[in-house]
Amino acid sequence: MRKVLIIGIGAGDPEHVTVQAVNAMNAVDVFLVLDKGDTTADLTEARRAICERFATQRPYRTVVIADPPRDRTAADYEGAVRDWRDERARMIEEALLAEAEDAVVGILAWGDPALYDGTIRILDTIAARGNVAVDYAVIPGITSVQVLTARHRIMLNRVAGPVHITTGRRLAAGWPDGCDDVVVMLDADLACRAYRDEDVDIYWGAYLGTPDELLVAGRLGKVVDEIDAVRREARARKGWIMDTYLLRRV
Amino acid sequence: MRKVLIIGIGAGDPEHVTVQAVNAMNAVDVFLVLDKGDTTADLTEARRAICERFATQRPYRTVVIADPPRDRTAADYEGAVRDWRDERARMIEEALLAEAEDAVVGILAWGDPALYDGTIRILDTIAARGNVAVDYAVIPGITSVQVLTARHRIMLNRVAGPVHITTGRRLAAGWPDGCDDVVVMLDADLACRAYRDEDVDIYWGAYLGTPDELLVAGRLGKVVDEIDAVRREARARKGWIMDTYLLRRV
Ligand SMILES: C[S@@+](CC[C@H](N)C(=O)[O-])C[C@H]1O[C@@H](n2cnc3c(N)ncnc32)[C@H](O)[C@@H]1O
Ligand SMILES: C[S@@+](CC[C@H](N)C(=O)[O-])C[C@H]1O[C@@H](n2cnc3c(N)ncnc32)[C@H](O)[C@@H]1O
Repeated sequence: MRKVLIIGIGAGDPEHVTVQAVNAMNAVDVFLVLDKGDTTADLTEARRAICERFATQRPYRTVVIADPPRDRTAADYEGAVRDWRDERARMIEEALLAEAEDAVVGILAWGDPALYDGTIRILDTIAARGNVAVDYAVIPGITSVQVLTARHRIMLNRVAGPVHITTGRRLAAGWPDGCDDVVVMLDADLACRAYRDEDVDIYWGAYLGTPDELLVAGRLGKVVDEIDAVRREARARKGWIMDTYLLRRV
Repeated sequence: MRKVLIIGIGAGDPEHVTVQAVNAMNAVDVFLVLDKGDTTADLTEARRAICERFATQRPYRTVVIADPPRDRTAADYEGAVRDWRDERARMIEEALLAEAEDAVVGILAWGDPALYDGTIRILDTIAARGNVAVDYAVIPGITSVQVLTARHRIMLNRVAGPVHITTGRRLAAGWPDGCDDVVVMLDADLACRAYRDEDVDIYWGAYLGTPDELLVAGRLGKVVDEIDAVRREARARKGWIMDTYLLRRV
């Protein structure tokens, strides 16, 4: 039975690692690192730095698994994600089979493993296939959403109110029904622009928790062009961007 | 300028404290503890234990502030919450004024300070009143929702799907529009029972992250009576319960 620990490491600030995550890292024999290519080389480096800083109590190895190519232009978005995940699962299954049966394997997940991350589903898939006996545990991590609210010093919800977490793709299809507080992630193109004439506040953040952190807040119509400019400039300079925002209808 | 640190401490497991929170606790001169009366004496004790375990690098004091009574039966729910919050703010303002101007004041918030917690709003209120100059920072913490998903080893969202976080009170008024994945918090009475005949899975957890943790999952109609029984028994035994759940329409 290979033991796999899916360890949430926070979304950029190494100090957002929990004591539980530190202890888990120190129980790991081998870290599997899913390398997503050069646009996120910085994120791979961030993971490496976290291992180096916190996994200090025993020796460990690192196995890098190149991410399979993913068809981001496919019309069948969910199908393309599924194919890519299956291929990823196959590669990780192979890597697990290469380890000793009693090895403790660690996989670091960005932010929290439960939020828009593929690792839990990959382990589900591997467990269901049954080619390798795995027992896995999930260790929660601070999400980028929590860093966003902490840095802006705002609440996620209003008093006893609901909050909706969604993607840029979905926001582009329409404002979610019946909810005035909406968090948007995975937005390649500031879908919130569509609401610039409405009474909406935005709290935006990029590279949250890192030295490059960017924050902008204000009435959407007033600040969206500034966010757009800041975002383009930063993405051009660094080669990638990760940003998220909360929209609050006022 | 009094410096106030609002420190998220996770929702029950002391190991969910982050490195940032540990460092923040070690910068604090005085912890303000908002005591909510005997039903949550266990939570006050959990906070005390966290201070004792992690704030080890310098001496600190603790000031306990009794929570003002709160009218939970008021028809005007939001108004009642507001009154109670104002009174709470006044008491905390007083406590801050009693400290030296350069004191670092820590307030521990259960879970993450941005999720159904009053501390950030209290500090906003105090800052706006201007009777005491405060500079405050927010340190994120693992929420009970993240412990729920980690312990059930499930995703919060489905592939590229949205998720809605709401209260028992709101769920009782109807299933949120346009979202099949709903997290329910602050539910005194298992409002999900209303959906027992629908194709919905539930992932339920109580006292998450603590030695008393309870977990039940399954098709809602099949497990809701079991959850109800487990919940009643636990609440009777301990005198209080904190539980949360994810509903997933299948
Ligand atoms: C694949 S999802 C992973 C989310 C991650 N599991 C979490 O808990 O935050 C990637 C998205 O998360 C958000 N994100 C992650 N890290 C971020 C950061 N440091 N700053 C801003 N947004 C971030 C962005 O919206 C990005 O498109
Ligand atoms: C006032 S809210 C505070 C939420 C907290 N800020 C968080 O981030 O989890 C209290 C509600 O959170 C949930 N909760 C908090 N701690 C919990 C725990 N250990 N187990 C289960 N639910 C919990 C319950 O739904 C409870 O009614």
